[in-house]
Amino acid sequence: MYDLVIKGGTLALEKGTLFADLAISEGRIAAIGKELEGKRVISAEGMLVLPGGIDMHTHMALPVGGTRSSDDFYSGTVAAAFGGITTIADFTVGSPHTSLKEDLVKRLEDAKSSVLDYVLHAEIVGWKRSRVEELREVFREGIRTFKFFMAYGDSGRRTRDGQLLEAFREISSVGGVALVHAEDEEIISYLEENLSKEQWESMKSLAFTRPDVCEATAVSKAALIAGYTNCRLHVVHLSSAMGLKEVQKAKEAGIKVTAETCPQYLLLTEEVYDLFEGHLFSASPSLKKSSDCSRLWEGLSNGFVDMVATDHCPFTRAQKAWKGSFKKLPYGLPGVETSRILLFSEGVKKGKIKLSDFVRITSTAPAKLLDLYPQKGTLLPGADGDVVIFDPEKEWTLSAENLHMNVDFSPFEGLRVSGKVAYTITRGEVIIERGEFTGKEGRGHFLGRLRRED
Amino acid sequence: MYDLVIKGGTLALEKGTLFADLAISEGRIAAIGKELEGKRVISAEGMLVLPGGIDMHTHMALPVGGTRSSDDFYSGTVAAAFGGITTIADFTVGSPHTSLKEDLVKRLEDAKSSVLDYVLHAEIVGWKRSRVEELREVFREGIRTFKFFMAYGDSGRRTRDGQLLEAFREISSVGGVALVHAEDEEIISYLEENLSKEQWESMKSLAFTRPDVCEATAVSKAALIAGYTNCRLHVVHLSSAMGLKEVQKAKEAGIKVTAETCPQYLLLTEEVYDLFEGHLFSASPSLKKSSDCSRLWEGLSNGFVDMVATDHCPFTRAQKAWKGSFKKLPYGLPGVETSRILLFSEGVKKGKIKLSDFVRITSTAPAKLLDLYPQKGTLLPGADGDVVIFDPEKEWTLSAENLHMNVDFSPFEGLRVSGKVAYTITRGEVIIERGEFTGKEGRGHFLGRLRRED
Amino acid sequence: MYDLVIKGGTLALEKGTLFADLAISEGRIAAIGKELEGKRVISAEGMLVLPGGIDMHTHMALPVGGTRSSDDFYSGTVAAAFGGITTIADFTVGSPHTSLKEDLVKRLEDAKSSVLDYVLHAEIVGWKRSRVEELREVFREGIRTFKFFMAYGDSGRRTRDGQLLEAFREISSVGGVALVHAEDEEIISYLEENLSKEQWESMKSLAFTRPDVCEATAVSKAALIAGYTNCRLHVVHLSSAMGLKEVQKAKEAGIKVTAETCPQYLLLTEEVYDLFEGHLFSASPSLKKSSDCSRLWEGLSNGFVDMVATDHCPFTRAQKAWKGSFKKLPYGLPGVETSRILLFSEGVKKGKIKLSDFVRITSTAPAKLLDLYPQKGTLLPGADGDVVIFDPEKEWTLSAENLHMNVDFSPFEGLRVSGKVAYTITRGEVIIERGEFTGKEGRGHFLGRLRRED
Amino acid sequence: MYDLVIKGGTLALEKGTLFADLAISEGRIAAIGKELEGKRVISAEGMLVLPGGIDMHTHMALPVGGTRSSDDFYSGTVAAAFGGITTIADFTVGSPHTSLKEDLVKRLEDAKSSVLDYVLHAEIVGWKRSRVEELREVFREGIRTFKFFMAYGDSGRRTRDGQLLEAFREISSVGGVALVHAEDEEIISYLEENLSKEQWESMKSLAFTRPDVCEATAVSKAALIAGYTNCRLHVVHLSSAMGLKEVQKAKEAGIKVTAETCPQYLLLTEEVYDLFEGHLFSASPSLKKSSDCSRLWEGLSNGFVDMVATDHCPFTRAQKAWKGSFKKLPYGLPGVETSRILLFSEGVKKGKIKLSDFVRITSTAPAKLLDLYPQKGTLLPGADGDVVIFDPEKEWTLSAENLHMNVDFSPFEGLRVSGKVAYTITRGEVIIERGEFTGKEGRGHFLGRLRRED
Repeated sequence: MYDLVIKGGTLALEKGTLFADLAISEGRIAAIGKELEGKRVISAEGMLVLPGGIDMHTHMALPVGGTRSSDDFYSGTVAAAFGGITTIADFTVGSPHTSLKEDLVKRLEDAKSSVLDYVLHAEIVGWKRSRVEELREVFREGIRTFKFFMAYGDSGRRTRDGQLLEAFREISSVGGVALVHAEDEEIISYLEENLSKEQWESMKSLAFTRPDVCEATAVSKAALIAGYTNCRLHVVHLSSAMGLKEVQKAKEAGIKVTAETCPQYLLLTEEVYDLFEGHLFSASPSLKKSSDCSRLWEGLSNGFVDMVATDHCPFTRAQKAWKGSFKKLPYGLPGVETSRILLFSEGVKKGKIKLSDFVRITSTAPAKLLDLYPQKGTLLPGADGDVVIFDPEKEWTLSAENLHMNVDFSPFEGLRVSGKVAYTITRGEVIIERGEFTGKEGRGHFLGRLRRED
Repeated sequence: MYDLVIKGGTLALEKGTLFADLAISEGRIAAIGKELEGKRVISAEGMLVLPGGIDMHTHMALPVGGTRSSDDFYSGTVAAAFGGITTIADFTVGSPHTSLKEDLVKRLEDAKSSVLDYVLHAEIVGWKRSRVEELREVFREGIRTFKFFMAYGDSGRRTRDGQLLEAFREISSVGGVALVHAEDEEIISYLEENLSKEQWESMKSLAFTRPDVCEATAVSKAALIAGYTNCRLHVVHLSSAMGLKEVQKAKEAGIKVTAETCPQYLLLTEEVYDLFEGHLFSASPSLKKSSDCSRLWEGLSNGFVDMVATDHCPFTRAQKAWKGSFKKLPYGLPGVETSRILLFSEGVKKGKIKLSDFVRITSTAPAKLLDLYPQKGTLLPGADGDVVIFDPEKEWTLSAENLHMNVDFSPFEGLRVSGKVAYTITRGEVIIERGEFTGKEGRGHFLGRLRRED
Repeated sequence: MYDLVIKGGTLALEKGTLFADLAISEGRIAAIGKELEGKRVISAEGMLVLPGGIDMHTHMALPVGGTRSSDDFYSGTVAAAFGGITTIADFTVGSPHTSLKEDLVKRLEDAKSSVLDYVLHAEIVGWKRSRVEELREVFREGIRTFKFFMAYGDSGRRTRDGQLLEAFREISSVGGVALVHAEDEEIISYLEENLSKEQWESMKSLAFTRPDVCEATAVSKAALIAGYTNCRLHVVHLSSAMGLKEVQKAKEAGIKVTAETCPQYLLLTEEVYDLFEGHLFSASPSLKKSSDCSRLWEGLSNGFVDMVATDHCPFTRAQKAWKGSFKKLPYGLPGVETSRILLFSEGVKKGKIKLSDFVRITSTAPAKLLDLYPQKGTLLPGADGDVVIFDPEKEWTLSAENLHMNVDFSPFEGLRVSGKVAYTITRGEVIIERGEFTGKEGRGHFLGRLRRED
Repeated sequence: MYDLVIKGGTLALEKGTLFADLAISEGRIAAIGKELEGKRVISAEGMLVLPGGIDMHTHMALPVGGTRSSDDFYSGTVAAAFGGITTIADFTVGSPHTSLKEDLVKRLEDAKSSVLDYVLHAEIVGWKRSRVEELREVFREGIRTFKFFMAYGDSGRRTRDGQLLEAFREISSVGGVALVHAEDEEIISYLEENLSKEQWESMKSLAFTRPDVCEATAVSKAALIAGYTNCRLHVVHLSSAMGLKEVQKAKEAGIKVTAETCPQYLLLTEEVYDLFEGHLFSASPSLKKSSDCSRLWEGLSNGFVDMVATDHCPFTRAQKAWKGSFKKLPYGLPGVETSRILLFSEGVKKGKIKLSDFVRITSTAPAKLLDLYPQKGTLLPGADGDVVIFDPEKEWTLSAENLHMNVDFSPFEGLRVSGKVAYTITRGEVIIERGEFTGKEGRGHFLGRLRRED
C-alpha cells in the first residue's frame, strides 16, 4: 500500500509515454505499474503525468535600483507551482565588495520562504584572483553554477574577457558550470551613445541598441574561452537566431555548451514595443523578430537549444512607470507560472515540439545540468516525488487576473491556451489541487547541501 | 500482491539503469518500483534484469541438401532460452512452386514445438507478378517481413534486380519490410568458375570467392532500390566493413535501412579456415578480416549496425563431413544460445559497447523492426513478462559440452566468458532456472495473429 | 613572323579570358600576346577564341543490325569540325571472338578517312582471362580507355560483375581508364518481359523500361568495384539525377570517377516519345524528365559532371523506320556538330554555366582524361594549333537542312540558337572558314602512337 | 621585336607551369610564346619566371615611441626588390586628431622615395561618425583598404566593437575591405596586469600574455560583424591554429574573409624568446608553438590561409635594446626581403606547398584582394611587366650581412636556403640584376589614382 497512487494517467517518460499508475511513498517515486494501490488515490484519467518542472532561471525579490522584483520567494514559488514547476534555480546577488559565501548566506535568508526546492547560482560581480578561493568555498556548499555578465558594464556588473578566462579555468578545475549573460557591451554602449534625443525617448530603441549580432559575438567568445579552458558553459536567455547559430557551431566543435531560451523569445517580437504599454515589455536581451522565434523553436526541436527557463523577474505597472526613456526602466518580465503552459500549448499542441521534447526541455535537461538528475527530472522509481498532473485538453485564457504571480499585467494577456495544471506534487506532497494552493510557506529545501550528501 | 517479483536487481532500461524491483502479473510486467511484493519472489541481488532477447534470424530444422539443420524448433528454442533469448524470428521455406500461404502453413507445423514465441519471415523464392496477391494474403496473417536472396543463383534461390524492384514496391505499399541476403552473385560465380582444382579443394576458397566488395555492391543496390520504392529494408548478416559503409551511406541519404550482424562476424576471421577442422566454419557470407570485426563493433556502438542476430543454422560434424570441396558443405553455424553471452562478455565487458547498446541491439531494436514493441523489447509495465536475470560476473568456458544446442561442436569452443543467464522468464513463466529448463514443449506462440488483433 | 595570327579576339583560357592575339607556327600554338605579326592574319574582333573541342564519345560507321550509323569517319568529322570539334574519340567494335588488337587494326581502317585527330576506345565484349594479355598489347599501341557494357545482355555485349572486377584490376595495373555504359540489365529485362502487347508497341515504353534507378544501381556498383581495384572509371552518357547522385557519392568517397553527359540528356525529355515521329529519338539510355535535365546542368556547373560528349550515332529516317516496336529500332542520335553550339547557347548564354566551365567540359577535361593534355585542350603555347574562332552573338536556327551530319532529321530541328563557329583550325590548318570546309579527307592522325612517343 | 624577352624559362602561371618565352614591351607583358625576339634578351635557362611578389603588409619608416622603423621607403623597397617583391602595401599613420585625407597626404610624402609601386592602407585610429565622410573621401583617392586595431587599447589605437560595427557597414557600402589586427585586448590587459615582477621582466611573458585564444576570439568577433554588415574582411598576420580555425569557420559560413600569415609565424616559435638575444624577436602577435606553424602551413596549402605578407617593421639592435621589460620594446621584425625566399625554400622545396600555391599566396591572391589584378599578380599578356627570374637551385645562407634591409640582425640568421632572385623587373625595367640594384629612387608609383582611372 503506497502513500499515494496516481491512477490511469499517461506517464511522460524520457523516451515516449506509458499508460500506467505511478506510486509515491515516503516522498519518493516508489513504483510505476499496473493496478497499484495507495492510501490515497488520485485519478489521472485523460491526464498527462509529468515530472515536475525545473526553472533554471528566476529572480525572486531581486534588488534593482531601489526596488525589488515584485515576487518574493513565497509568492513566486506558489505561482510557479500553479504552473507545474517544482524546483527553481535563483541567483545570489553579487557585488564587488562581498565574498561569494557572504552573498550565499544572505540570499539563503531571502529564500527561506520558498515553497519549492531551490538551487542558487552564484552571481559573480567583480572577478579578481581572490575569487578563486571563494569559488571553491561555495562549491563545497553545493554551488555548482556561476553566473557572469558580459554586458551591463555601465552598472559595473560586467566581467571582462581576461577575467572570464581565469574564472572559467577555475570553474573547470572544480567541475562547475559557467553561466553567461551573453551580449557584447561595446556594441550596446556605442549604439546608446549615438542615439538621438528622440531615440533616447523611444521604447523601440531598446531593440535597436541590442541587435542580434551583439548576442552572437558574445556567445562565440564565451564558447571559445570555454573550449580553451575545457569549462562547461551555459548560455542563459538566448534570444536570437544569430546567437543560436554560434551555440550550434560551438556544439559541433565539441565544446561543452548548453543554452536556454525563454517563452518571451519564442512568442513575442520587438513589435510589442510599439504598443501603448510597450514599455512594460522592457527586458534584456531585447525581444527580436519573428524569424528569430522560428529558429529558436527549431533549436528546441533539434536539440541545439537545450532547455527553456523564464528569467522570471516581475515588476508591476507602478514599478515600470515610464520616466521618459527606455533606459530608466527596470528590465524583466513575469513568467514562472506560464512557461510550461505556453510551451505545451504553443509548442506541443501546434506540432513545433514533441511531448518528449517538452519533458526534456522543461525538466530532464535542467535537472542534468544542475546535477540533480536522477533525483529530479524523471518519473523513474527512486526519484523525488515531484509530479505534475496536467490536463492537456483544458482550454482557458491567460490573464493577470487568473494568474498568481504578484504583478498586475501579463505579457500574454488574453492569450487562449490549451492545457492546465490539475495537481502539483513535490516530494509526495500535493501542493496544488483543484486550483488551490495547499502547501506551506518555507517547505522548500535548498538543494545545495542535499546533493553534497549523496 | 503480484504473481512474481524480481527483487533487488539492476533493471536495464532503454535509457540507463535503475535499481528497482520488477513485478509480473498475468504474464505481463505489472510494475517497477521499490519494495514490491509478490506471491513468488526471486532475488536478483548483484544481477542485471534484462528484457528478453530477440533473435531476428534463426533457421531451425532447415531443409538443406537432403538433411536438415540439426536443431528443430524444440531443441533450438530451449537452447535459445539458456542464452537469454525469449523470441525468435525464423523463416518459411520458399520455393518457386508453392504459394507464400502454403509455405507459411507448412512452416507453422514445424514450429509447433517451439518453447519460445516466434515470428516467421516469408522467404520468397521465384518472384513473379502473381506473388503480389500472395504477399498481401500472408500480410493479413501477420507476416511483416519478406526475405530475398541476392546470391545463390546456382540453387535457384536468387531474385533478380527487376523482380526486387517490383517486390519492394509491393512490400512498401503494404507497409512491410524487405530482408536481403546481400551478396553479388555474379562476382561469386565468376570467382568460383575460375578456381584452380587445388583452390576448389581448399576451404580457404570460401573466403576468396566471397570478397567484401560483393557484399558492398549488393547492399548498395538493394538500398537504392529500397529508396526508389520507399520500402523499408533490412540487411541480414552484414559481415564486412565495406558492406557497412554502404549501409551508412544509405542511412545518411535518408533511406529506411537497418542492418544486423552476427557474433561470428564480430569475433571470428577467415583465418579459422586454415584450422584442422576449418570446414566446420562453413557459412555464407564467409568470415572476413579482423579489421572488418573492428568496424562492425564500431557500427554497433554508433548505431550504423542496428542489431545482432545469429543466423543460427547448426549442422553436426557428421553433416559437415568434408567431401573434397568447400562447395559441398552445408553452410551455417550454431549460435542462438551464445549470442547474448558473447555480446556481453566481448562487447560490454571489454568496453566496445555500453550496456544500453547491448539492450538495444539484442532486444529493443529487433522488437521495433518486427513491430513487436512495446509488447516485446522493454521492461516497462504493460509489456509481456519476458525477462532475463543475468549474472554479469559469472565466469565460465564455452563448450559444446555445456551448451544445449543440438550440435557436437562450437565455433567458440574453449572461450572464457564473463556473464551467464540465471533465469529466463517468458510471459511470466520461469523456463530457465538454476541451469535447468523448466518449460514445456510447444508453449511458444506464433506472433502473427496476436499482433493483428492489437 | 608567325605562320598564322588570330588578332583581337577574346582568348578563353582555363582560368578566365584574355584580350590578346594568338599565334600559331608549325602546327603548334607559338605565342599569345599583344600585337603579334603573322604571314596570315585572321581578325577575331568580337569573337571568342576557344581551344578545339574534344568529343569523348562518337560512333562513326557503327555496324548495328545489318546497317551502319549513317556518318562515316569522313562525313562525321567534317560535321564535327563545323561544330567546333577538333578531336574525336570513337570505339573499336568488339566481339567475343576477336582479339582487342584485331579489333583495333580493323577499326583503324574505318578511321583512315577522318578529317580530325582521333582516339579509339577499346570496346570489350566477352571478358575472359586471356583478355589480360590483349589489354596490355593494345595499351602498348596507345589505347588507354576500355569500354564495357553493363546492359545489353540480350545482344551478348554485357560484361558481368565478376568479369568487371577482374578487368578493372588489370586496367588499374596498367594505368588505364575503364568506361562503362551503366544500366542495370536485370531491371531492364524484367520490365521488358512484363510489357503488355500494347506497351511493346509503344515508343513510350523505351523510357518505362529504363528507369533512372537502373542507371543509379549500375553507377554505384561500377564505382564500388573501381574503388576496390583502385581503377579510374569513366561513366559515359549519364542521363539521370539519380545516376548523378551516385557519381557524386563516389567522388566524395575518394573514388577516381569521372562522368560525361550528352546534350540530349540536358535538353530533351521523355515527352518527345509522344511526338508524331517520337521513334526518331530512340537512344539508350532513354531520355528522362526535366528535373533530371536541371540536375545535370547543375552537375556541369559544380563539377560533379565532368564533361559533355555526344554519343553521336546517327541513323536516317529510313534506318529508323517504325517496325512495330521500340525494340526493333536502332538506338542512337546525331549530335557531334551541335554539341558545343547547344552548350554555349543553352548553357553559357542562359547563365547555367560559365564560359570557363564551357571550355573545361568541352575541351580541357576530356583532354586530361584521354591523357592528351597539354597537347590538346588548351591555348597555351606549345599545344597543338587546335583553335576555334566562335561568334558568340550570331543567331541562327538549327535544322537538318543547314547541318552537315549525314542524317535527314535533327533532334533539335527549329531551335533558335546563339553562337556559331566562324573558323576551325587544327594543327594550324584552317579547315572551316566562312561556312566552308577547306580541309582534306584523311588528314586526321590516330593519337595512339603519337602520345606514346612523347 | 619586343623591348625585352626572357627566354627559355619555366613560366609559373596560375594553373601549372609552361616552358615558353615571355616578352615585355612598353612596360607591359606583351606575349608568351615560343621563340620570341627582343631588343634585349635575358636567358632564363633553368630558371623560374614568376609574377612579381606583392607584400600586403609593410611598415616603412613607421613612427613608434620617438623613433622610426629602420627601413624608409627607399631602403625598404630596394631590399624588397632583392627578395622578388615588386609591389608593397604600406599604411598611413592614423591618429584620433587627423583626418584620413590628411594622413594620406602626409604618408604619400614618406613614400615618395619608393623604388616599387605601392598601395596604402588607411589606418583608422579613433572611429567616430564623422569618419564616414573621410572614408568616402579617401576611397575616391583610390584607397580600398582600412585597418583597425582590436588590440593596443593602452596606446589608444584600439577600435571598440560598436565602432567596428558602424565602420564595417560603411566600408561595405563603398565596396572596400576592412583589415583587422585581431587580438582580444581584454585578455591581454588582464594577463599583463597580473604579471609578477619577475614575469614583467621576462621576455617570455610576451607569449604568455598573448595566448592563441585571444586571437581566436577576436577573429571570430570580427568575422561575425563582417558577416552582419556584409563587409569584406582581411585578417592580418594570423599567428595561431586556433585563430585559423575561426577563419575557416567564417569562410565555411559564407563570410567574405581572407587571411594572411607571415614567415615568422610559419617558421619560428616562442622558444626563441629564451635565446640570449630573444628580445630581438619582439613582435605582436607573439610567436606561437610548432603545432601552430604546422597548421598554418596546412592552411596555405588548402586555401584557408590566403596569402603571406611580412609585417615588415625592422628595428636595429640599438633600437631594440633591452630596458628591463618586454613591454618597453618596439614590436616588429624585418622580413620584406626574405619572405619569398623562405616560402620557396621551406615551403615548395620541402613539399609543404606547391609551386602554384606559392605564386598564388605571394602574388595573385594579394593582387586580387587589392583590386590590382590583372594589372598585377599574373604573367598573362596585358599585365604590368613585373617579373622575377628566380634560380630555384641556388643555395646560400641568410644573414644580416648579405641582406639589404637596414637592420643589423636577421631572425633567420644562418639559415641555409635554396632559391635566389636573379633578376627583378618592374614595369619592364630591370632593377635587380646579377646581385646589383640598378633602379632609381622614387621610381615607384602610388597605385591609388592609377586604378581609379581604369
